[in-house]
Amino acid sequence: MISVVGHTAIDHISRVPHLPEKNCSTHISDRQIYFGGGAANIAAGIATLGEQVTLISCIGGDFTGSEYDLWMNRIGIHQQFFVIPDAHTPTAFMFTDDTGDQMTFFEWGASKAFAHAEAPSLPFVHMATADPEFNCRVAERSEFTSFDPGQDVFWYTREQLGTILANTDILFANQHEIRQMCTTLGVSRDAIIRQVGTAIFTMSGDGSTLYTDRSEYFIPAVPVTLADPTGAGDSYRAGFLSAYVKGYPPLTCCKIGTVTASFVVEHVGCQTHLPDWNSMRVRYEQHFGMLELPVPGNG
Amino acid sequence: MISVVGHTAIDHISRVPHLPEKNCSTHISDRQIYFGGGAANIAAGIATLGEQVTLISCIGGDFTGSEYDLWMNRIGIHQQFFVIPDAHTPTAFMFTDDTGDQMTFFEWGASKAFAHAEAPSLPFVHMATADPEFNCRVAERSEFTSFDPGQDVFWYTREQLGTILANTDILFANQHEIRQMCTTLGVSRDAIIRQVGTAIFTMSGDGSTLYTDRSEYFIPAVPVTLADPTGAGDSYRAGFLSAYVKGYPPLTCCKIGTVTASFVVEHVGCQTHLPDWNSMRVRYEQHFGMLELPVPGNG
Repeated sequence: MISVVGHTAIDHISRVPHLPEKNCSTHISDRQIYFGGGAANIAAGIATLGEQVTLISCIGGDFTGSEYDLWMNRIGIHQQFFVIPDAHTPTAFMFTDDTGDQMTFFEWGASKAFAHAEAPSLPFVHMATADPEFNCRVAERSEFTSFDPGQDVFWYTREQLGTILANTDILFANQHEIRQMCTTLGVSRDAIIRQVGTAIFTMSGDGSTLYTDRSEYFIPAVPVTLADPTGAGDSYRAGFLSAYVKGYPPLTCCKIGTVTASFVVEHVGCQTHLPDWNSMRVRYEQHFGMLELPVPGNG
Repeated sequence: MISVVGHTAIDHISRVPHLPEKNCSTHISDRQIYFGGGAANIAAGIATLGEQVTLISCIGGDFTGSEYDLWMNRIGIHQQFFVIPDAHTPTAFMFTDDTGDQMTFFEWGASKAFAHAEAPSLPFVHMATADPEFNCRVAERSEFTSFDPGQDVFWYTREQLGTILANTDILFANQHEIRQMCTTLGVSRDAIIRQVGTAIFTMSGDGSTLYTDRSEYFIPAVPVTLADPTGAGDSYRAGFLSAYVKGYPPLTCCKIGTVTASFVVEHVGCQTHLPDWNSMRVRYEQHFGMLELPVPGNG
């Protein structure tokens, strides 16, 4: 069982002819609602690939019985939620105009409850963006920890980042995030890699790099027709972690993450085009050759 | 039975520390969802005052079974809806920052269907903001018509405004709206009053004026602690129309409208603090003296 800690969120993606000036209005020509939140995206990816997953999120009184709730149940995500009846489930409103300019309004909502929530002790946990303090407590109490600071990397103090990395077994970050971590901690990238042991740095459509001990492997992206890059990183983690608990070595896990992400970016939305294990395997073998048998034991 | 034609809408009212620049984001510190839409506000006011009311609106696939739907059923609004399963119920997103500056994004959504919807023939109808062409068709087919152009007054062509006023028995407008109607039609305010016969012009917190034939009456606002002026006009119309179908003379209807509005502005939201007939009567008698018996027959 993989546990994933972090946000469950609802994304309202709207198109407008133009973004409004202050004290003006505009009309929405199209609004789509997508299921999102980094942790929920990762959990949905893992569940769709067929692994057991528990999602630990803060949700509002608007969640139970909602379409998002039904979707999670349908794909088999186990929910371990802090329910805040008077708050909303975290919600993002993003408006894009005809020239591609955007404005985003993000409602943290129920996720405020992370700050005072009791941190669980878990055998295998991935920590996506959430409250830094809560993530620190989870990391300290858990056995095997994978960590991905996401855009919240800016909210981590030096002490928090130190605590969490001291308890991290696998680190995921993109180039901006690793740079910010180096700045906050005042250490080099290599020092961070040495501390955690296994680090994966993603480079958008340019592939990813795996660092283990003294080795370094580049994994090229799988070329697909890109519809929307949102959710690529989350689905990469879902693929990696699903493979990891099956016993695949880290380099194969990265390839499986890459292939999983290649499905998600072909459609708009983070959870709209997740592959099952078999679809993933077919595409894997087209690009990376035979998918060898795993060595059980990590899960 | 009073019919009300126009929008049912959902209002998301959010507070943000600052409004975002282009390609930036901000966080929402508070978001409240209110039931709105001019026609729905008026229908809710009428239903709460105890009159029979049918609401004619366009709604999306998100409406049936929603909290707004349950609320309408609870207060007894009869729904005569054009349901557009693939669209959203009209929705407004309003963001206000700490200095009071605002941005509004309005999704017309299902209301697009008014343009091609079949107009009903009604014995007593109030037309709130909706598609001008649809309102014209309703006005032409109906027996007794009350009309309130609202902020949509700018969308009416000279021909549409001419058609609708030729079929209007009672006109409601604020000062901006009547000025715009004069501009569009190229006629004086007095000419419009003469044409419709009964006109009520509201002046925000400064009361309202009733014009009938050659008489003119000023009705002062009821002094209350103002929380939110939104919905004042809609609840005024609800009070007026409820009284009118009971047989009260227009001046008394205006006073009842004024008293009804005084409740609504004491709380945030357009449908959160609607009075029942008895509460309205108690406050009426405190300010305007004994509420005489109506002369039945208008309804």
